[in-house]
Amino acid sequence: MALIGKLVICGVGLIGGSFALALREKGEAAHIVGMGRTRASLERARALGILDEIALDWAAALDGADYVLLATPVGQIDAIMAAMAPHLQAQTIVSDAGSTKGDFIAAAYRWLDVHLARVVPAHPIAGAEKSGAEAASAALFRGKRTVLTALPENAPEAVEKVRAAWLAAGAAAVDMAPQDHDRVFAAVSHLPHLLAFGLVHDLAGRANAELLFSHAASGFRDFTRIAGSHPEMWRDICLANRQALLGELDQYLGELALIRSLLLSGNGERLELLFEEARQARIAWGEKSQL
Amino acid sequence: MALIGKLVICGVGLIGGSFALALREKGEAAHIVGMGRTRASLERARALGILDEIALDWAAALDGADYVLLATPVGQIDAIMAAMAPHLQAQTIVSDAGSTKGDFIAAAYRWLDVHLARVVPAHPIAGAEKSGAEAASAALFRGKRTVLTALPENAPEAVEKVRAAWLAAGAAAVDMAPQDHDRVFAAVSHLPHLLAFGLVHDLAGRANAELLFSHAASGFRDFTRIAGSHPEMWRDICLANRQALLGELDQYLGELALIRSLLLSGNGERLELLFEEARQARIAWGEKSQL
Repeated sequence: MALIGKLVICGVGLIGGSFALALREKGEAAHIVGMGRTRASLERARALGILDEIALDWAAALDGADYVLLATPVGQIDAIMAAMAPHLQAQTIVSDAGSTKGDFIAAAYRWLDVHLARVVPAHPIAGAEKSGAEAASAALFRGKRTVLTALPENAPEAVEKVRAAWLAAGAAAVDMAPQDHDRVFAAVSHLPHLLAFGLVHDLAGRANAELLFSHAASGFRDFTRIAGSHPEMWRDICLANRQALLGELDQYLGELALIRSLLLSGNGERLELLFEEARQARIAWGEKSQL
Repeated sequence: MALIGKLVICGVGLIGGSFALALREKGEAAHIVGMGRTRASLERARALGILDEIALDWAAALDGADYVLLATPVGQIDAIMAAMAPHLQAQTIVSDAGSTKGDFIAAAYRWLDVHLARVVPAHPIAGAEKSGAEAASAALFRGKRTVLTALPENAPEAVEKVRAAWLAAGAAAVDMAPQDHDRVFAAVSHLPHLLAFGLVHDLAGRANAELLFSHAASGFRDFTRIAGSHPEMWRDICLANRQALLGELDQYLGELALIRSLLLSGNGERLELLFEEARQARIAWGEKSQL
């Protein structure tokens, strides 16, 4: 018997589509229903074999649903939960795939307070500079991790169902407190995205942009890969997590002020030491993470 | 007949070693001699088949030399030219592989003024987060570009010899004015290295560094790859090009101040527009550069 009978995916893009494909491939989702903003993209997802059915409204989508995955940009979560609330049934688990957790949890407390036993926040850590259902793959989460930030109100069997679903999709589930999650990912994910977007935006606006880009090489390619990420998704993440992100940005500006002073004073010794410490940490991380 | 009879490589690391291997493979260097700071690393390079001979001093190295490639960290160039000057013969071409050109040219005017017809500054654009002769490869420069910043004093046949040598190594040679070179590479190479070193250094110094690194994923991996680069090499580049680099850093700090203000005011519309402009420029560059 499948882990999930009726699976509802709201936002059938790279993440939602890949979750659906992975569970279908394992036989762990018997019937997959899509919800979303634009009919055309849902039709494409059905044509790609991601969906069995397209729901026209939440009443139809949630009728008999076992598991809802919210995989839209995080800025839409509040309005989606408000629309879901009147139709949500007692058995349905609601989870998500958002890169920020504080906003999801606030919206859940606001709109789904009687359902909190089965509202389980989750964040799969999978690269997403491509977007859309066309980029979806059953293999996207294999060998990756999904962070679960369970609520005190969660029923243990709901948390275990979400954990099992991600395991079926190929990802190891790890537990974390929501506030730790948002601070950690501000530092290691949200800030680097902001910095990469910023560098490309800065260079693209120059009078000699074409000359500059023509000499950019593999270091630039890798440093700026994440500047190809989905603008709406990252706008929402930055706004949802802006308190932690501003903290990280300010800390980084302090680091740049230090580097600037070492450059200005020509302090090669301390500059080299700083580079060496960074290099050692980067190499140690690379060996440990196996990424 | 080989393009180069006696080739002298000073600094037999990734770049110098790869140049030697590539020319040897093509039969374009008849005899390859190594110079460097440490005897042990020259012995390793000889054992790896990169060198035919190790020179003990510049008098021996430069005797009958056709082509000298200076491939040390750029901070050593001034002292090296001073040591070479008394022994440099009339036929010898002197070129380099440095990521900055203003400092190389200043040293050439200071020490090699009677040889300027055959001192041709060059910068191969090839990734170098690995270092050392062990990482050298005859294929390193294939499909890459080498920027030549010829001097007004250069003899045309000397420039063409350097161009032909890089072509034999697999790289297309492109011409550029030295001051343009240093500004362009400050923007698309030196600044990103500084930013990546800075981010890793910042995170590595935190009390919760281990937790942070344990959640870093593929976006972080690519953004920080260049933070694994050679500290001494990058110290020298940053110091040699610090005027242009400070200009780029300050321009980038202005970009971050803009982004910070958009975050603070919660201006999602302008944040998304900035991300979208960056994304479009990044995608257009990726398609054009084929990197």
